[in-house]
Amino acid sequence: MKALVLTSGGVDSATCLALAVETYGAEEVLALAIYYGQKHQKELEYSRKIADYYHVKFQILDLSVIFQDSNCSLLVGSDTEIPKTSYAEQLVESDGKPVSTYVPFRNGLFLSSAASIALSHGCEVIYYGAHSDDAAGNAYPDCSDAFNQAMNQAIYLGSGEQLRIEAPFVNLTKAEVIKTGLSLKVPYQLTWSCYEGKEKPCGICGTCRDRAAAFAANGIQDPWRDFYGRNAS
Amino acid sequence: MKALVLTSGGVDSATCLALAVETYGAEEVLALAIYYGQKHQKELEYSRKIADYYHVKFQILDLSVIFQDSNCSLLVGSDTEIPKTSYAEQLVESDGKPVSTYVPFRNGLFLSSAASIALSHGCEVIYYGAHSDDAAGNAYPDCSDAFNQAMNQAIYLGSGEQLRIEAPFVNLTKAEVIKTGLSLKVPYQLTWSCYEGKEKPCGICGTCRDRAAAFAANGIQDPWRDFYGRNAS
Repeated sequence: MKALVLTSGGVDSATCLALAVETYGAEEVLALAIYYGQKHQKELEYSRKIADYYHVKFQILDLSVIFQDSNCSLLVGSDTEIPKTSYAEQLVESDGKPVSTYVPFRNGLFLSSAASIALSHGCEVIYYGAHSDDAAGNAYPDCSDAFNQAMNQAIYLGSGEQLRIEAPFVNLTKAEVIKTGLSLKVPYQLTWSCYEGKEKPCGICGTCRDRAAAFAANGIQDPWRDFYGRNAS
Repeated sequence: MKALVLTSGGVDSATCLALAVETYGAEEVLALAIYYGQKHQKELEYSRKIADYYHVKFQILDLSVIFQDSNCSLLVGSDTEIPKTSYAEQLVESDGKPVSTYVPFRNGLFLSSAASIALSHGCEVIYYGAHSDDAAGNAYPDCSDAFNQAMNQAIYLGSGEQLRIEAPFVNLTKAEVIKTGLSLKVPYQLTWSCYEGKEKPCGICGTCRDRAAAFAANGIQDPWRDFYGRNAS
């Protein structure tokens, strides 16, 4: 194996996977999806769909025990509801601190777990799909370019210079990620973004709103358009 | 909780725990021991002993699934024997690469897991006992000061500036760590260092040799002296 790709079932990681497969070939790519105690399993289900589409090896890792004492609103054990407001509104409410859907140091933990697994398989690179919209205003501080650079340095040095991070979208907006993905013909109908785990995306949570806007910015409707057309703001 | 201390049952983390308790008080300290698929459970057993001694809350985290495909000689699934030679000799053999007892990105993973748990408990600092002997010659690249600085930066930024690493021994030798611990009256008879999991330390593995030498440098015998007196080189 050459490359490990962290997948979440969403559009960013699907685009990452497409890039990794284009660069290394499907047989050299391992897709890793992580269960961390989310209220639903859609991320894993759609991670598998996209991995199957690209014919890459797929692995699920369960790290939910690590978050058993967290009160993040995305997690099963939390008594906090997932906000229905935009990230900008949530940031005002949280007074510049991470928002209630921030899972404590999730990306750091995911990248570290990926590093241990990648080294066991002889991989030289980890791909992940952090982008600049998620880091805006410190909503998700573990999506920022500064975090990414520090984590890349930690993984490069801590692995004996055997492994590095590739975060191709860290300075791109979600709309730009989708633009890249459209040129690679990423099957976005096989991705899931909504924080809710219902049959169809809710269309009103922060991530649903972002996704709809990013497709709209590319002048096209989301493949989930039948639903989004009715509900998205 | 204010401080999370990573414990391995050895002298370095026991000294870290003593420092954290002295600084924050026992009721503000959480000791975290990690099972990662070691061939024996001594690290956990002695981590608990030292946590009990200091009356701090104690938690065990099982991350063994992450290393299921690693061939590190410390792990249950490995077909590689734990070396009986010194680190210096092992480094010659490994040609400057990490030695066979290097667990892929272990410290990065441990610190990231600790960060997620620490944030869930409202801690502001993670203590861990990396010291300069372990980093020498790149034997364990995830013990170096450079790695520690990068990881600290990643955790500080990725947590929204809520959490930092304290690695008080990163520029000290093991002998200097023990000197610090002796002044704090750390009960070193409640620690375990040997890579083997027998009734008593083997006295000949790399870590047994290092430990014996570090106590000798302080002009005292290891509390395990009855055994070491017979076996250590």
